[in-house]
Amino acid sequence: MTEKDLTADYAAAQFGGALHPGQRPALILVDFVMAYLDPKSPLYAGVESAFESAGRILSAARKAEIPVIFTNVVYTEGGKDGGVFFRKIGALQAFVKGNPMGDFSPSLEPEGGELVISKHYASAFFGTSLASTLTAMTVDTLIITGLSTSGCVRATAVDACQHGFIPLVVREAVGDRDPRPHDANLFDLQAKYAEVVSESRILAYLENIS
Amino acid sequence: MTEKDLTADYAAAQFGGALHPGQRPALILVDFVMAYLDPKSPLYAGVESAFESAGRILSAARKAEIPVIFTNVVYTEGGKDGGVFFRKIGALQAFVKGNPMGDFSPSLEPEGGELVISKHYASAFFGTSLASTLTAMTVDTLIITGLSTSGCVRATAVDACQHGFIPLVVREAVGDRDPRPHDANLFDLQAKYAEVVSESRILAYLENIS
Amino acid sequence: MTEKDLTADYAAAQFGGALHPGQRPALILVDFVMAYLDPKSPLYAGVESAFESAGRILSAARKAEIPVIFTNVVYTEGGKDGGVFFRKIGALQAFVKGNPMGDFSPSLEPEGGELVISKHYASAFFGTSLASTLTAMTVDTLIITGLSTSGCVRATAVDACQHGFIPLVVREAVGDRDPRPHDANLFDLQAKYAEVVSESRILAYLENIS
Amino acid sequence: MTEKDLTADYAAAQFGGALHPGQRPALILVDFVMAYLDPKSPLYAGVESAFESAGRILSAARKAEIPVIFTNVVYTEGGKDGGVFFRKIGALQAFVKGNPMGDFSPSLEPEGGELVISKHYASAFFGTSLASTLTAMTVDTLIITGLSTSGCVRATAVDACQHGFIPLVVREAVGDRDPRPHDANLFDLQAKYAEVVSESRILAYLENIS
Repeated sequence: MTEKDLTADYAAAQFGGALHPGQRPALILVDFVMAYLDPKSPLYAGVESAFESAGRILSAARKAEIPVIFTNVVYTEGGKDGGVFFRKIGALQAFVKGNPMGDFSPSLEPEGGELVISKHYASAFFGTSLASTLTAMTVDTLIITGLSTSGCVRATAVDACQHGFIPLVVREAVGDRDPRPHDANLFDLQAKYAEVVSESRILAYLENIS
Repeated sequence: MTEKDLTADYAAAQFGGALHPGQRPALILVDFVMAYLDPKSPLYAGVESAFESAGRILSAARKAEIPVIFTNVVYTEGGKDGGVFFRKIGALQAFVKGNPMGDFSPSLEPEGGELVISKHYASAFFGTSLASTLTAMTVDTLIITGLSTSGCVRATAVDACQHGFIPLVVREAVGDRDPRPHDANLFDLQAKYAEVVSESRILAYLENIS
Repeated sequence: MTEKDLTADYAAAQFGGALHPGQRPALILVDFVMAYLDPKSPLYAGVESAFESAGRILSAARKAEIPVIFTNVVYTEGGKDGGVFFRKIGALQAFVKGNPMGDFSPSLEPEGGELVISKHYASAFFGTSLASTLTAMTVDTLIITGLSTSGCVRATAVDACQHGFIPLVVREAVGDRDPRPHDANLFDLQAKYAEVVSESRILAYLENIS
Repeated sequence: MTEKDLTADYAAAQFGGALHPGQRPALILVDFVMAYLDPKSPLYAGVESAFESAGRILSAARKAEIPVIFTNVVYTEGGKDGGVFFRKIGALQAFVKGNPMGDFSPSLEPEGGELVISKHYASAFFGTSLASTLTAMTVDTLIITGLSTSGCVRATAVDACQHGFIPLVVREAVGDRDPRPHDANLFDLQAKYAEVVSESRILAYLENIS
């Protein structure tokens, strides 16, 4: 069975319908922190092109004056607030409070008034007040960029859908350490939870919002 | 890069650590409903062997007298309670209240006292009181079987981890309409959120619980 | 210290600010079921006037064509899905599936397309997909009526605020078995979480929405 | 109708059943911050005796080596992450990041390894990973102390019950700026959601846990 067959099979089963972007988007930048960006980190993911794409989208979002939200991951010493997830992934030690691997990159970091959500789990919605914040701002659409596609990006996109927001996952602005999980997760997201869209489509969308 | 390389790469990055099953498990059977099981349904998934494996695990769970939870999906006419998810997936029409495609199979259905969670989204935890129920019963471990691996099973396993339960995903007892998303999602689950275990290991575990 | 002093003291501490109703309200009717309405029920609460007020608001909401949501409470035999709450309150036995005390009153019940949320806990948001449904419909304001003020109404109003919706609690359309908890809870709600408003103000608001 | 009548009326309606403390408690100290403790603060609540009682319970909890959790409230400049709640209560300005009114008192503050939950809403569970943390530690019971009874304490106790934990609210260790909302909320909590217990009973309980 070829890849085309898989898409055809899903279409026949009525997956992959189109979601229409709303009028009040926000932008989220998931976990663009040094652990994934610094070549000396064990988590270094080689995602420079996603980083650059996200930078261009961030500029457009600021120009359009839509809400911008950054996430990072921060644990207490010992990781009790990471529960089962912290026990599962040794790599999460990089995010214990004070570790510079958890810092934002100086070239992609929050400006005054932009929200930072410090999360403990994969989804930016889980165990955070993100959904409440977006609802209180009457946001209806979430533009999703970040790292990594098979982890926090997917979990965030699935939860965006579940919470009632239209998730727009920007293909060029999400990245992973390996192309196979990256592609497999974009396939699932487009089939079941989100619109996977191009950077150029998002830039055009933001131009029309502003 | 071969599959072995991918596993090695993840191990070097410290993913895929082992989670140890607890003393108080519950079993969940995710969405074993006619829509996936009836060959005439557009959602028919050819997952007979997962269905049979889940049946064997259910018998062992009943013998061990651990809590057993079934899920299904039920929407109001029009699907307003399915929100964005219902808009995305045309196939969810099969689960509007009254459609026999949403029924459990007669050979795998709840007995007196076993809980049925009717959910609206992919995760059995999302928008339901499942986490509260498990916590109130002091469950610490969730044995996960069901359909489909790339959808509701993964979402449920990720949320089990996020909610503080040890997720044990039974390889033979979860199924999908295509082996590629099935395998890709089991890879992600083992790397980041859950223990993917064999049916025989679960049967031995349940024998020791009882 | 008189009641007036209490209000003055709270105002000095900067509680009780005004929330402004939004443009996209929904109406919720919390637990208007026979257990509270039937004089033979141990839970009978003598809340006929709240029931009648809610009926008038429901008519106006239907005329304005805003979303209408009814809640009830339904437990599995044995109440496992009620967790700690079911253990605490013996009276919740009235809501085990099949007990007619859990039925809606024939003179205040859902019509085609109006949503019914079956909940297990006090808050209509807790363990349900209500927040997601409202967000997916881009609702920004929740008009709250129902029973009882000190229980499910308060819990629902607090959660509406926490989830990012403007809660408008209609004074005449919420009721309790005793005026003291009723008054005390309306005081807290107005001080910290919601606008407690009159029926006439809501009727005027709905007239302007339609 | 006298207060005694109210209790009798509730008992006849089968409210106020007893919840039995479990084997694995944690202690939470809700919002013991300078805003309520400093006589110069507009939120100063005159709750010295609750503060002292909580101090005694904290010592006993540390001796018993049970998990200890402190909460505070922290908002971004402008309060976007406080949503509707921040708009409602002007007093919450005291908790914008950097304001010393949000600091813990030096005589009741976290020691190494004790968890701090920074919340945005009344309930310590809402928009935080508290429930997950407690579940991952297999906690079954939550000893609740803090400020204020009619606000964050009640919301936290209701949510503890809803999440599946036995809430033990310590009468002497919770406080409010006025005795009337304090008493009214303890009445509701005992009737519907929690065990309201004495400090001496909690100290004896903790002695037996250790």
